[in-house]
Amino acid sequence: MTRLTATYLVHDKKQDLVKKAESIALGLTIGSWTELPLLIQEQLKLHKGEVVEVIELDEDPEANQYLGGTRTRGLLKIAYPTANFSHDLPAILTTVFGKLSLDGEVKLVDLHFSDEHLSFYPGPKYGIRGVREKVRVTDRPLLMSIFKSVIGRDLDYFQEQLRLQALGGIDLVKDDEILFDNPLTPWEDRVRTAVKVLREAESLTGEKTLYAVNITGRSSQLRDRARKAVELGASALLFNVFTYGLDILQELAEDPEVAVPILAHPAFSGAFTSSAFYGLSHSLALGTLLRVAGADLSLFPSPYGSVVLEKGETLRIAHSLRTDQLALRPAFPVPSAGIHPGIVPRLIQDFGMDSVINAGGGVHGHPSGTVAGGKAFRQAIEVVLAGKTLSEVASDTKYTELNQAIALWGGE
Amino acid sequence: MTRLTATYLVHDKKQDLVKKAESIALGLTIGSWTELPLLIQEQLKLHKGEVVEVIELDEDPEANQYLGGTRTRGLLKIAYPTANFSHDLPAILTTVFGKLSLDGEVKLVDLHFSDEHLSFYPGPKYGIRGVREKVRVTDRPLLMSIFKSVIGRDLDYFQEQLRLQALGGIDLVKDDEILFDNPLTPWEDRVRTAVKVLREAESLTGEKTLYAVNITGRSSQLRDRARKAVELGASALLFNVFTYGLDILQELAEDPEVAVPILAHPAFSGAFTSSAFYGLSHSLALGTLLRVAGADLSLFPSPYGSVVLEKGETLRIAHSLRTDQLALRPAFPVPSAGIHPGIVPRLIQDFGMDSVINAGGGVHGHPSGTVAGGKAFRQAIEVVLAGKTLSEVASDTKYTELNQAIALWGGE
Ligand SMILES: [Mg+2]
Ligand SMILES: [Mg+2]
Repeated sequence: MTRLTATYLVHDKKQDLVKKAESIALGLTIGSWTELPLLIQEQLKLHKGEVVEVIELDEDPEANQYLGGTRTRGLLKIAYPTANFSHDLPAILTTVFGKLSLDGEVKLVDLHFSDEHLSFYPGPKYGIRGVREKVRVTDRPLLMSIFKSVIGRDLDYFQEQLRLQALGGIDLVKDDEILFDNPLTPWEDRVRTAVKVLREAESLTGEKTLYAVNITGRSSQLRDRARKAVELGASALLFNVFTYGLDILQELAEDPEVAVPILAHPAFSGAFTSSAFYGLSHSLALGTLLRVAGADLSLFPSPYGSVVLEKGETLRIAHSLRTDQLALRPAFPVPSAGIHPGIVPRLIQDFGMDSVINAGGGVHGHPSGTVAGGKAFRQAIEVVLAGKTLSEVASDTKYTELNQAIALWGGE
Repeated sequence: MTRLTATYLVHDKKQDLVKKAESIALGLTIGSWTELPLLIQEQLKLHKGEVVEVIELDEDPEANQYLGGTRTRGLLKIAYPTANFSHDLPAILTTVFGKLSLDGEVKLVDLHFSDEHLSFYPGPKYGIRGVREKVRVTDRPLLMSIFKSVIGRDLDYFQEQLRLQALGGIDLVKDDEILFDNPLTPWEDRVRTAVKVLREAESLTGEKTLYAVNITGRSSQLRDRARKAVELGASALLFNVFTYGLDILQELAEDPEVAVPILAHPAFSGAFTSSAFYGLSHSLALGTLLRVAGADLSLFPSPYGSVVLEKGETLRIAHSLRTDQLALRPAFPVPSAGIHPGIVPRLIQDFGMDSVINAGGGVHGHPSGTVAGGKAFRQAIEVVLAGKTLSEVASDTKYTELNQAIALWGGE
């Protein structure tokens, strides 16, 4: 019998976590047990949820105070027979956190998929290795950047910004998540323009830059749009998965004709990851579930900027995306916001080689402009991988752009 | 220029709500303003978000304590030009609460759609009046019930439970949200069985009972499944909208071939409605947005049971579903959980005639069984609509089932 194990963090009013766990395990599967005739019990055995572990945690005085009474904190691990749900993420989420999400202070912190069960979830089509092949970079973290405010701007503006980013040595340029299909820069035209611009840039730099077009619109259009985008030459897709649904990401990822990497954007995810008491953990939402649904890259708030996640949280996301405990291709973590060249040593130390360095203002805001902004990042990466500190190259004219950036934003 | 106005509840670290509002209005639209050349300003004017109102609220000492410092609480109203997003709910959610959902203590509490903008959102296909026509009941609240634990059970069990509920006088019987397509009770067989059972019951009772089949599976299958369900004779659909996405609900609702009412189930919604600081308000998620996306009925936790919402919250949900301030058909509120016949007077007082009384245990747990359970509810409704109290009929033999229920669960 294959099972899916869910881990919940509870702040329980009553003082009996075992009882609570039992009631979840039954309530979300067969409903009742002890009062059933033996014959029926036999029949329902394969569908019964089971409490795997109950771990009582220390009291949290602040939580008690805020919630207005003593709460028993604990982690409950419950195993659900996969026979209970069809093979889709909505069925899983409905079972393990449908009604339960409405039942007081319960947070779903982890899901453990067995290898067998994962056969229904192919995961990332490219993963870290496949994305590296696309950009032809094997030996360093990748560099990503985003367009500066593009709403209300035309294709010329778009084209020029893309060109500068590519010339700066950026591996992946992504659309802004709030740029939809629109009359000034229709998505097909953005893709067509990008193909042309990036080909020209490649002929100058010898390097490959991918453009991730924001794939948007009505749900039933997405597959055709994604296929069309690939046909037109889009080299990646940006997808606001949490405003659509994980299953739609999975359908895009599973489609062999959508033959490009998918970047999952965390838009809207804060609505259900931010609370200490409710919703999903960051590592489950932006790590495990995105990987199971097939994202090749996952963007999430870095621990360095003004829109911040606590560092431990971001490391857990990165871990979920890359751990070989999950029998799927690993996906790239993309810690975002607050990134400038001076942060690169810390970024690489924290997130390692197999991560993506992503910046917006840290590229476009460079004193010498966008091209220099890209170069400054590439230089920072080069310095770190050479085993040097940024201060060791402070007077090296080979690293002018980097040193300009450090003069403006600081560095370590 | 059409605009969509969002209202946010913020607990802000800095003491300048106006500045915060301005930074949201710009940051989520054109990005920057004052440093732009006049010509560009002119060009971007139509896309610029605008602060409509900033209301400072009283400090909340408990929130301050929990969040670890003084927070300025306030409501920020920001108007977004609808020119900025394509006409789909994912675009709207990404704009108004995409990145912002990740930015500290910000809760999206309301969205105001202009009548003009609503032309892209047809809303409920049936609404309250259309559902009433389907069940041929115009003069009382409707009565809904749910199957008792059906996982691991076969079609015979399903059939018998449905028969008893229909004979008890239930208007709408809904699948359990955690019953998916499965080998024991495949969804097509459930629909076929229901058609037969409900036809027989109608010949006995003269009344109409709808069966809402849980429409599940992969996203791209849902439309065909829904159409097939209708073709096979399903009289309503249950949909776990929040594990799929609001736009998928909208696509089902817009489809003329899906010619049955849709019940939206709140499964998973607690993940993003429960927190006082983050996510969406209950009335926005389970009221306005479901109505805009086209739900004919919205289930939500009642204020009476063990899985509870605060009463004010539930009334705001009901208001959002029915208010004529939104130029769409009104949808039925379905306060659920903790409902037994003794609660009916309070239910009708709180939620009015245009609501649905929904029970599970309160029907099946009746001392004389499921049929009696249904009858007890119908009797309670009759008594209340006759302007009597339950105690006035305590010794009336016409209301035996009701009085049995009251003896067990109490009543007012
Ligand atoms: Mg952005
Ligand atoms: Mg249920």
